[in-house]
Amino acid sequence: MTIERTIALDVMGGDFGPAVVIPGASISLLRNPELKFSLFGDEAAILRELNGHPELAARSNIYHTDSAIAMDDKPSQALRRGKGSSMWKSITAVKDGDADVVISAGNTGALMAMTKLVLRPVAGIDRPAIAAIWPTVRSECIVLDVGANIGANAKQLCDYALMGAAMARALFHIERPSVALLNVGVEEIKGAIEVKETHSRLRHARDLPMRYHGFIEGDQIGQGLVNVVVVEGFAGNIALKTAEGTARQISRYLKDAMQRSFCSKVGAFLAQGGFSILKTKMDPRRANGGTFLGLNGIAIKSHGGTDALGFASAIDIGYDMAESKLVKRFSEDLNNFYRQITDQLNS
Amino acid sequence: MTIERTIALDVMGGDFGPAVVIPGASISLLRNPELKFSLFGDEAAILRELNGHPELAARSNIYHTDSAIAMDDKPSQALRRGKGSSMWKSITAVKDGDADVVISAGNTGALMAMTKLVLRPVAGIDRPAIAAIWPTVRSECIVLDVGANIGANAKQLCDYALMGAAMARALFHIERPSVALLNVGVEEIKGAIEVKETHSRLRHARDLPMRYHGFIEGDQIGQGLVNVVVVEGFAGNIALKTAEGTARQISRYLKDAMQRSFCSKVGAFLAQGGFSILKTKMDPRRANGGTFLGLNGIAIKSHGGTDALGFASAIDIGYDMAESKLVKRFSEDLNNFYRQITDQLNS
Repeated sequence: MTIERTIALDVMGGDFGPAVVIPGASISLLRNPELKFSLFGDEAAILRELNGHPELAARSNIYHTDSAIAMDDKPSQALRRGKGSSMWKSITAVKDGDADVVISAGNTGALMAMTKLVLRPVAGIDRPAIAAIWPTVRSECIVLDVGANIGANAKQLCDYALMGAAMARALFHIERPSVALLNVGVEEIKGAIEVKETHSRLRHARDLPMRYHGFIEGDQIGQGLVNVVVVEGFAGNIALKTAEGTARQISRYLKDAMQRSFCSKVGAFLAQGGFSILKTKMDPRRANGGTFLGLNGIAIKSHGGTDALGFASAIDIGYDMAESKLVKRFSEDLNNFYRQITDQLNS
Repeated sequence: MTIERTIALDVMGGDFGPAVVIPGASISLLRNPELKFSLFGDEAAILRELNGHPELAARSNIYHTDSAIAMDDKPSQALRRGKGSSMWKSITAVKDGDADVVISAGNTGALMAMTKLVLRPVAGIDRPAIAAIWPTVRSECIVLDVGANIGANAKQLCDYALMGAAMARALFHIERPSVALLNVGVEEIKGAIEVKETHSRLRHARDLPMRYHGFIEGDQIGQGLVNVVVVEGFAGNIALKTAEGTARQISRYLKDAMQRSFCSKVGAFLAQGGFSILKTKMDPRRANGGTFLGLNGIAIKSHGGTDALGFASAIDIGYDMAESKLVKRFSEDLNNFYRQITDQLNS
């Protein structure tokens, strides 16, 4: 028997609101027919969009809200004034056990502040992180933190490693995922003090719920050497955006290069099958969705500017995570890891 | 009248030593016929390679050394035991005024430690930085620090901005280059404290020898919005390597995609003119060479594994920098900037 999973959607979030969220949910429902949706937002606007998606309408409950968080609200403003908003109420649905996951394309800072307040960090975690799914030449890996926090000490980086491993287990179905620390060199003498300290803790820990790989450098992320890459949020965010920017830059080079001569144009026309495979591979919508880890509940942030296909990817991730009992398992891993460290200190 | 410029080469540095350094110098001499070279290393090995390059031989002096720094020597070992090495002596040539620039493909840590000790940082600079040349869709920009130091405070980031502007002036011949700070968002409320503090100092400074642009994010580096991008060395190194890795990853996707069908193969064959333009654009050898900035002299680190074409690029950069009286101008900029800040504090 398949267990139904309910996804809470902040329908008003993102640059396009219901016009993207509803068709996105419809695409994901086709792929995951056991999904149910709780739709939070302006009822009239939701109903208008649902008209074109009867299968989705049949699997959805609508919860009307009068207000929404603006993309440029500061987190503090959002917390003060946002209690009745579609974002707030969709998060509350997870807290109350009425939904398994919340997904929003809204304001990242507001979503982080609200999920922290409503869902609360898992006991022992002081900072939730944002994890990105990063395409590699082999398949995909998880990179965290990509910008929830600036800086991280060794304790927090160890937490990220455990969180990332839990997510990899949920998404990739690998019992002991491989985890690496991002550094400026692979030698033990190099790197930030916190990173070296984290390395030493992970290397000496017993019975880790992961295979600890050691250091990797920025150029190795895309090689798919490991399932999880751990880095503090400033460098992680810059790495993620730099990779996106480089991909766009090369697409532009490629387009220009194929326009240079008649022969290139004909060749590009003939090779269009190959180019469309390349385009799919490089499509940022396939990896859309930053997952907030370390909270008592799963929250996913979709890119604000994505389309229905991109939003559907974020829902797919949320579905896989909900299936996996990620939060419960992660709490156990965390307790085991820190009990072990305490035991070592006491022995 | 063209003034002759002398480049000191650590011929024994890098994975291939004379086999790459000598042909590399020969290529650069073709492009810059007014160059002269001081070659430091094993005389017999140098003479063997020079046999095939009579024009270069005619423009070179050889200085025999018995020892060389190994690629895996620690900086402290290199300093203790490396005084007679080809690396040490080539740096000393710049200090003594016998050469304008030193170039080595050897051990980065050792080169940084030795140049700091021999050339000394410019008065007022506590930390030299490594600058990379980054290809953009418009032309090129300079990114620093890409790994000389981990972390940087606001004073050091301001120094990097001034150093980067001086290098852009030398290489791009722009009197007031545009400079941006790399951050995790473009809003003023976001980012690391040091980055926000640097922003405030640069925004309020008068008569800067640059146009200060404000923040940019990782995906904007390759767009060529500015001439110089400033970031602390941990995130900067990760950004640079992530961009290199992403470029390799996409090349691999492209190659695979073009092999998928007969039609794609024919198309790729016809479009080979376009692909070769793309390949040139993406060739990492064109931007080879990390420049050490903030020292009383110019030192350039070539990639250890590059070939003659890559090494020639590093020499070309060194030549442009030597031409520009970069060090003198930079010292003046630095003095003006800090005098202004002191004046503000006293008024």
